[in-house]
Formats: sequence, structure tokens, C-alpha cells
Amino acid sequence: MTLHPIGTISTPFKTIADCPRNGRQLNPAPLCRARVLPEFVPGLASLDGFSHLILLYWLDRPARDYALRFVPVFDTEERGLFATRNPVRPNPIGLSVVAFDGFDGEDCLKVRYLDCLDGTPLVDIKPYLPTTDAVPDASMGWLARHATR
Amino acid sequence: MTLHPIGTISTPFKTIADCPRNGRQLNPAPLCRARVLPEFVPGLASLDGFSHLILLYWLDRPARDYALRFVPVFDTEERGLFATRNPVRPNPIGLSVVAFDGFDGEDCLKVRYLDCLDGTPLVDIKPYLPTTDAVPDASMGWLARHATR
Repeated sequence: MTLHPIGTISTPFKTIADCPRNGRQLNPAPLCRARVLPEFVPGLASLDGFSHLILLYWLDRPARDYALRFVPVFDTEERGLFATRNPVRPNPIGLSVVAFDGFDGEDCLKVRYLDCLDGTPLVDIKPYLPTTDAVPDASMGWLARHATR
Repeated sequence: MTLHPIGTISTPFKTIADCPRNGRQLNPAPLCRARVLPEFVPGLASLDGFSHLILLYWLDRPARDYALRFVPVFDTEERGLFATRNPVRPNPIGLSVVAFDGFDGEDCLKVRYLDCLDGTPLVDIKPYLPTTDAVPDASMGWLARHATR
């Protein structure tokens, strides 16, 4: 089970301290870019008309080793890792639902709502489908009290 | 960039021909299970109260090599792979937003809305957060005409 980068993500966030807590925290959300390697450009066809995409990326600069239970910085109780979006995970795959603002050249997507470090390896791009991906009334457990919107 | 299974997914789908087109296609959606390896059980704490989760898994039995452009079976035009949810991808990570129906033993989650093969390796569990993950009014490009709900 080996991943290969299909491209690289550019964000304004140069250090982990610069990264927002989530991609919706900054308002306005800064413009970011997802650039694919030349050999993957043909796979970007047909993205026009999708307002949102799902990006998967490899969180390549962990701040520490992962812990299966820990007290989140904004909470007071110990939580299970899989009930958090903490980036330090057994398989450090980051996932963001991003707004797709069109192309900047044939190999580069303009997107908003990323929270990862500049230079993060991109591993997949999927179209966001509200029919299967949107559950606006989902309940969010212990995180409900920390919701920012 | 190496992934390690954190567990295994159980579904009723034994062959690719058995798999629905997406996890919302079957009604009622069959109950599936995501079982984690014993060493990851502590990470499942605090999942109570989340109605939905995001599961990431490794699509380990591709039907063929990936193609960056192809004509989807339900369409008539060639499309770019990254504008589809086709499971045959450069990095074959599957993603499903699933309903979480509670535990079946301390190591096993009962979930609905999976469309993958029985025995698929599980690589991550994330809580679904409507604040960042739900975009009910997202536009779905060429797939809009094929939407099933």
C-alpha cells in the first residue's frame, strides 16, 4: 500500500503554527493551489462545473508521533484519535472539502479552505458530490461544543 | 508514503459486480462493519454522538489499470479520472461518508453507505463535521445529469 504524489499543494502556511485549526477558520479563506505533475494533467479534464472538490494529501511533516488518545488543545478531556481530525495519525492522509475556483494553467487548480502546510504532497482529487458527501444535519459528538460555525 | 491497514471492512459485496455504484444506491442500505486491529481500539474512544464518519480504505482489487481519461459506463463522453469517483486511481484510496450506527464489540463499528468489496483494508476513520464537510448546494458538473437523488 504505497502512495505516490500526483502533485503538490501550495498554501500560505509555512509552519505548523501558521496553519489554521481548519480550512474554514480564516475569513476570507486564502487562495491556495493544487498543482499536478505533467503526466496527470489529462486526468483533470471535466472538472469544470464542480463547485467543490475533495483533496487528499500526505501530511508529511508531523509535529510528533501519533497518540491514540490525547487531550486536544482546545478541550479538557482525553479523546480517541479517530474521533478527531488531528493530522498526526497512523496513516497521515489529510482530507479537505475545498471550493474550486478554476484553473491557473492546465496543471493547477485554484482552491480555498485548505489548512495544510505549503508544499504538502497531493495524492488524490475527487469531485465533491452533495448526493453522497453532504450531511448538513450530522451530529458531531464531543466536537459540537467546539464548532466554529 | 506507505500505508498500513488499521483494520478491515466487511460488506455484503463479494465481487466487483456486486458493488453498488455508490453507497447511497441501495435502499435500504445494508449494514456493514469496520473492524480495527486490537492495537488501534484505544483510538475509537469518543466516537459516541457522531452520526456520520468518513472512512478511508485501500481499493486493493482493481478491475484494471487506471486510465486518466475514459468513458464512464453510465455516460457517453470521455471524462478526466479526477472528475470521477472511479475506484481505479493512481492512489486507490476510497472515501465514503457513512452513517455510524454504534459499536458491535469494542473493536467494530456498524456503518451504512459503503460500496466497497468485502475484506477491503481500512486505513483511516475521521469524524464527519458538517461545519467543514457538508456543502449541500455544491454543483456537480458533468455528474449532475446522472445524480440519483
